[in-house]
Amino acid sequence: LIAEHAAALFQHTALAGKRVVITAGPTREALDPVRYISNHSSGKMGYALARAAVEAGARTTLVSGPVHLATPDHVERVDVISAREMLAACQDLAGDCDIFIACAAVADYRPATVQEQKIKKGDERSTLELVRNPDIVATIAGGQPRPFTVGFAAETQDVESYARGKLERKHLDMIVANDVSAEGVGFASDENEVCVIWRDNAQRLERAGKLTLARQIMQLIATRLDAARMDAAV
Amino acid sequence: LIAEHAAALFQHTALAGKRVVITAGPTREALDPVRYISNHSSGKMGYALARAAVEAGARTTLVSGPVHLATPDHVERVDVISAREMLAACQDLAGDCDIFIACAAVADYRPATVQEQKIKKGDERSTLELVRNPDIVATIAGGQPRPFTVGFAAETQDVESYARGKLERKHLDMIVANDVSAEGVGFASDENEVCVIWRDNAQRLERAGKLTLARQIMQLIATRLDAARMDAAV
Repeated sequence: LIAEHAAALFQHTALAGKRVVITAGPTREALDPVRYISNHSSGKMGYALARAAVEAGARTTLVSGPVHLATPDHVERVDVISAREMLAACQDLAGDCDIFIACAAVADYRPATVQEQKIKKGDERSTLELVRNPDIVATIAGGQPRPFTVGFAAETQDVESYARGKLERKHLDMIVANDVSAEGVGFASDENEVCVIWRDNAQRLERAGKLTLARQIMQLIATRLDAARMDAAV
Repeated sequence: LIAEHAAALFQHTALAGKRVVITAGPTREALDPVRYISNHSSGKMGYALARAAVEAGARTTLVSGPVHLATPDHVERVDVISAREMLAACQDLAGDCDIFIACAAVADYRPATVQEQKIKKGDERSTLELVRNPDIVATIAGGQPRPFTVGFAAETQDVESYARGKLERKHLDMIVANDVSAEGVGFASDENEVCVIWRDNAQRLERAGKLTLARQIMQLIATRLDAARMDAAV
């Protein structure tokens, strides 16, 4: 019981006064006025993280791609469509931000040109020219001032090794890796199982509802943020 | 008042005993396990047509792409994702169908190959190879037995001339054309304004809620179906 009270107390004060920005959902990259490239992200994990951040006492902003979810209580929400709009919104917020969590499934590529009129059907085969989108989490992690930056890695194979590579390459403080090909977890579902990885360690979080996992991830973030502050003070 | 009662009577008997199949919503064409090409169709117009068909006394089936809408009362719903799945479902139903209404916004193209693993980020630029999807409404209109076949044309320019070309090229009985670039109508909105075109005439339906328009379209279909039956009997 004392442990429970301690946990509850932690929940409500762990991030008191902190400013948290969380990206969530997919982005959509227009081909023309009616068509787009997108992905299966439901936004549920990012929205659960926003709720957990509020519970932990943080001032919380969601930068959200197009999703069908209600905004959690006490969360400020900024709606965006494309990766470039999401980056612009995050850069606006990064200056006044302690923790940045990039949970959105940002489209890696967008069509090189957007047609102003609906593209007419033509040949049997066609090619679509694509260009790389900006890397939002790497841009924020490389900025000054720099928030504690958390990435997500949704992979279908070699999940942990890909995720640790991403942590190092993008200079993140933490990365949350999950296997989106596993049955019953990931994008559209209400449950997830993840591995949280930081520079000198990792912790596997067993399969659970996304809000339960979000609270555990927020605790790990708060602990690492404290550790980082102590390291800086030494 | 008598006119109103007559209209109500028409509503409830115009398609009594008829079997109506309606496609609705977008299709999604997978690039890999997480990414897809899709479009902004909400499915609202197709779902309104299904409700209007039930009101007119028809046995009604919706073949629906991924949408966030409740199934109307007394409507049978078949869920599909891709254009090829939608075609297969429609072909299964076409044999026992009097009226086929292709309201879905079917992706014209799909990726030529679907990657089994999530595609890794590579070069600054990339190309996506696309192949034409089957033309569902033309396939059904060209089949035997052949239902009374109604297409939709969502255009952003020269709406009526494109639509009439489509009617003739695909051997449709009727086409409903709308300008999706007009303000406040079309894909995501609750209102629409359309032009209903058949071989020897056309009728413009003023801007109205989608259910109101759906009822007007169903009346036009019932009238044309009767006319076609009389022509056949002559």
